[in-house]
Amino acid sequence: MRLPLRSFCTFRSLYSQTQTTNAHRRGLSGVAMRLVQFHRHGDGRGIRVGVEQGEGLGVVDLKEFDPSMPSTMRELLELGDKGLECAQRALSSGQCVLERSQIQLLSPVLAPEKVVCVGMNYRDHCLEQNAPIPKEPIIFSKFASAITGPYDDIILPSESQEVDWEVELAFVIGRRGKHIQEKDALSYVAGFTVANDVSARDWQMKRNGKQWLLGKTFDSFCPLGPALVTTDSVKDPHNLGVRCLVNGDTVQSSNTDQMIFKTEALVAWVSKFVTLSPGDIFLTGTPPGVGVFRKPPVFLKRGDVVECQIDQLGSIINKVV
Amino acid sequence: MRLPLRSFCTFRSLYSQTQTTNAHRRGLSGVAMRLVQFHRHGDGRGIRVGVEQGEGLGVVDLKEFDPSMPSTMRELLELGDKGLECAQRALSSGQCVLERSQIQLLSPVLAPEKVVCVGMNYRDHCLEQNAPIPKEPIIFSKFASAITGPYDDIILPSESQEVDWEVELAFVIGRRGKHIQEKDALSYVAGFTVANDVSARDWQMKRNGKQWLLGKTFDSFCPLGPALVTTDSVKDPHNLGVRCLVNGDTVQSSNTDQMIFKTEALVAWVSKFVTLSPGDIFLTGTPPGVGVFRKPPVFLKRGDVVECQIDQLGSIINKVV
Repeated sequence: MRLPLRSFCTFRSLYSQTQTTNAHRRGLSGVAMRLVQFHRHGDGRGIRVGVEQGEGLGVVDLKEFDPSMPSTMRELLELGDKGLECAQRALSSGQCVLERSQIQLLSPVLAPEKVVCVGMNYRDHCLEQNAPIPKEPIIFSKFASAITGPYDDIILPSESQEVDWEVELAFVIGRRGKHIQEKDALSYVAGFTVANDVSARDWQMKRNGKQWLLGKTFDSFCPLGPALVTTDSVKDPHNLGVRCLVNGDTVQSSNTDQMIFKTEALVAWVSKFVTLSPGDIFLTGTPPGVGVFRKPPVFLKRGDVVECQIDQLGSIINKVV
Repeated sequence: MRLPLRSFCTFRSLYSQTQTTNAHRRGLSGVAMRLVQFHRHGDGRGIRVGVEQGEGLGVVDLKEFDPSMPSTMRELLELGDKGLECAQRALSSGQCVLERSQIQLLSPVLAPEKVVCVGMNYRDHCLEQNAPIPKEPIIFSKFASAITGPYDDIILPSESQEVDWEVELAFVIGRRGKHIQEKDALSYVAGFTVANDVSARDWQMKRNGKQWLLGKTFDSFCPLGPALVTTDSVKDPHNLGVRCLVNGDTVQSSNTDQMIFKTEALVAWVSKFVTLSPGDIFLTGTPPGVGVFRKPPVFLKRGDVVECQIDQLGSIINKVV
């Protein structure tokens, strides 16, 4: 069943389009927004893409504003500037706004082709474990099935006794590319978000032939969100406070200025190996303060609440069940 | 533009459907077929799913037979028995058949959620490198972007000097599951196919912190095909001759009876960690004879032709460029 709102919003869309046709185009990086994916409570229409009016504020339903727009972030990113410009018009319109109580936020990207992860990428995290500063990025991965929403539960698997937290700056690829140069790399990045690279240390460090994948990819081991904050909304992605709190206690507190390989270098590096596609997610490594290197080590247990915060991007809060 | 054939094939579909409604249903494992994906030359309709009339013979265009059927294997598998039964009807109809000269075969699955790979899974391959027989499967992964067609080129990257071959039995998941028991595991497997787990040994063994991912996931490093041979078509997947030929010389020749962890064990093991989904691909490890363990080592060079053969499944032939 369609709400009467829909036709009004479609009208607004057409009206706004004529106003912005000649707007200055700076490509993917020219649009400052907080993009989200959500379910509407009691609505059978599934995943929708939205634009936040501000962190934690109302969300504009993009497909309600313009029914020709797709329902998922990955499809929106595949539209390139056209999709982002429509999202900008939707936000400017002030129409088709849903209250937060009407929706459940999902991960801003689901079903990416790749979840690319970077190990040992904070100077202070290397010092913490007496490890040398890597000369090249160390790349591993999670399966997309590990992704969960910004406020969803982390499911403690019975197979691990050593589940640990890792707050990380994540970024999302906005357009297809291979052999991307560092100087062009940011134009391939749609935006930034917050991730928790949840890690079963027993499986990561002691089993599976020391290949990290299994310990990193249990279902629910990649909480992500709350929003995809577009590149132009973030003043300097490499000067952001990064914190992780467990049950309200700060366990990690650093700054993305400690990153050894920054966004541009990671895009250039990984695109030597693989073609990057819209929706691909990068987790850029974690600062010190993880549980496994504490004395004695500390791991997550049922009932714990983990909050990962990054300045300008927001917080994800996940209960361990 | 639609061909006149289409409406005839749709009619045949409805006619056949009434004939098989009460057919015995054994679930996913009850249907013996060779499923493929293909492009039709000079046709703008993109990827299609087909059923081979036999290895290398004509291909029934499933969507031509029944326009309600999906265009990709992953979507077909998501339909479960309904999709496979329709494919069986299409095959039995003898209609909507394309000659091989009219089509280009693609990988039987594209864009899976996961490409799960198994290391050190042949007894004789462990002996070859004086490595102990693993007590648990060693799991790593490739990105889906590495998948290429059964007769497509392997692109030699300038970043590696040590690109190697690995013929492998692959299988494809047919339905969603977690914590699957070994005794039920085969009912989650849609079928089998042939893979080449192309590997850049320098990146796999000496760089990237010894995480294998990068050396395994260059674009084109996962040739796959030619068909998804459904589980019931294969008499015993763990008693199949496996061979790799480089420029016509046999470099690997073994049997899947050498596999340490067989299909059922791998499905059960990996589903402890992650939810498996239709279309997920498993590469089950390689027998001895890879280039890196030869004395002196041998690696692929431009112009080489690599053929991977598995009994009952077929061959994939890929030129190195």
